[in-house]
Amino acid sequence: MEVLLLTLELLGVFAFAVSGALLAARKEFDLVGSLLLASLAGLGGGVARDVLIGQGPPLALINPMYLLPAALAVLLVWGNALREGRFRRTLLVFDAAGLSLFCLTGTIIAADAGLNPVACALLGLTTAVGGGALRDVVANETPQIFNPNGVYAVPAMLGAGLMVLILELGVFSIWIGITISALVFTLRMLSLHYGWRIPLAGRRVTGG
Amino acid sequence: MEVLLLTLELLGVFAFAVSGALLAARKEFDLVGSLLLASLAGLGGGVARDVLIGQGPPLALINPMYLLPAALAVLLVWGNALREGRFRRTLLVFDAAGLSLFCLTGTIIAADAGLNPVACALLGLTTAVGGGALRDVVANETPQIFNPNGVYAVPAMLGAGLMVLILELGVFSIWIGITISALVFTLRMLSLHYGWRIPLAGRRVTGG
Amino acid sequence: MEVLLLTLELLGVFAFAVSGALLAARKEFDLVGSLLLASLAGLGGGVARDVLIGQGPPLALINPMYLLPAALAVLLVWGNALREGRFRRTLLVFDAAGLSLFCLTGTIIAADAGLNPVACALLGLTTAVGGGALRDVVANETPQIFNPNGVYAVPAMLGAGLMVLILELGVFSIWIGITISALVFTLRMLSLHYGWRIPLAGRRVTGG
Repeated sequence: MEVLLLTLELLGVFAFAVSGALLAARKEFDLVGSLLLASLAGLGGGVARDVLIGQGPPLALINPMYLLPAALAVLLVWGNALREGRFRRTLLVFDAAGLSLFCLTGTIIAADAGLNPVACALLGLTTAVGGGALRDVVANETPQIFNPNGVYAVPAMLGAGLMVLILELGVFSIWIGITISALVFTLRMLSLHYGWRIPLAGRRVTGG
Repeated sequence: MEVLLLTLELLGVFAFAVSGALLAARKEFDLVGSLLLASLAGLGGGVARDVLIGQGPPLALINPMYLLPAALAVLLVWGNALREGRFRRTLLVFDAAGLSLFCLTGTIIAADAGLNPVACALLGLTTAVGGGALRDVVANETPQIFNPNGVYAVPAMLGAGLMVLILELGVFSIWIGITISALVFTLRMLSLHYGWRIPLAGRRVTGG
Repeated sequence: MEVLLLTLELLGVFAFAVSGALLAARKEFDLVGSLLLASLAGLGGGVARDVLIGQGPPLALINPMYLLPAALAVLLVWGNALREGRFRRTLLVFDAAGLSLFCLTGTIIAADAGLNPVACALLGLTTAVGGGALRDVVANETPQIFNPNGVYAVPAMLGAGLMVLILELGVFSIWIGITISALVFTLRMLSLHYGWRIPLAGRRVTGG
């Protein structure tokens, strides 16, 4: 279980780190800026979760292995092995992968820390959307979570909510985890492809 | 006392959440983006305070009731019950209400945690201005606290300072709390109405 | 040792606070906005470090002396004793001074808290670049760390890495500290003067 959790965490770090390194490339940051933005995107959500749980230093500080996926992501983007394509929005695909992994791991780690189910779901959501939000804010972009094209937080909320249910029922298995994660990823990608929208926060203002 | 504190906290969450939902509407975010921005505005200051106090998870995570005012604010803005008027700057009124409530509760909660008076005043200020600052930064706006039209942090500092004095003297009552809060709110609103300004940070640069 | 550490910390707070007050002046914030931005720049890196270490409230909250250098910086900039010159980029000089001091103190404080060497180096880096990053993000600027002209994080990483080595070897002295700090400062200033660059994060995109 512990190995599985670490594996999912590191995959999530890698996915978000790729999104950070791609954004750094688009904004013409240098390699060190890329490493910082990739680390912030990859580690930020989990660090925020661990700071909120408040039981000592974040996992990413205690275990230096968390740094490797970020470094790998930077190298792959730098070496052009991963790049923004004309037809594929590579950044958004990796961002969706990170989202689908972290809503699981965030919820599990919060439950391990003994928090109540609502807090576990909220921390799953925080882990899932936190790194991407920090990446965008620090790079001076309006965060993806606020982009009304496609849905972003909803799949993560759904994944975290399902995960809390599974943990409460005590029936978690790796296959259930993979299924929830695949569901979150698929919903996010479908929403981008078909341009799903949810109602706006207010009446559209004209002439404003 | 505990019920009073929770009531003031939830009112403050509601006030800042309305400001977040109104900003989300103005920026044409969708309902979920509105819920996230309203929650960040409403809960961000208190979460920052609790993280800085460092005694376990933030109140907003432990007590799910903190989420209700944020959801209510989003619904009221969405249903057009609360909206930006032509003559009233609704966002700024609710922002001022949150400011006046959180400089009290932040100071009280820090004092309950046993911090020194200076730290209590600083955490009162952090609680009061933190949520609004996070709201503006995440929505890619220059924070209200840096807007030289009107005063923002000064009334909150005054409120937190008075509250520390009251707590040190051991004479707190609900009426004193309401009076300080009304004073902070009134100062903020008057400063907006009359365009009070304090000196700039440096000589005005010309041609720069 | 404790007095030395506090002195270095307060000098670092002062240096970053000056950079914050100068940025506030450039952006035409008022005196209170200047105090808030100077405090955020001066105290933000250390507060982030202490929150990540997770052993109670940040030093800057416990010890009110941390506030004095920030207030002093605001007054000096307001009184025009420190200002942006035509030929000297005063802000960048003070920013570099803060960087060179905080990569030392951050590493030492993390080591005192018993963290592993990798975590100590990361927290040294966080302390060094955190305040400046917060300053720029909150003032709605793209952070210096992402500016590809000159190197910023590299000298701080080097300083934090050397400091970890010195602490592991158990040979720290004030002269070694001053030497490392001077090295970091010199590298940063030389990189600005000669426009040193490191490779970009990705191929330069044309027509994008």
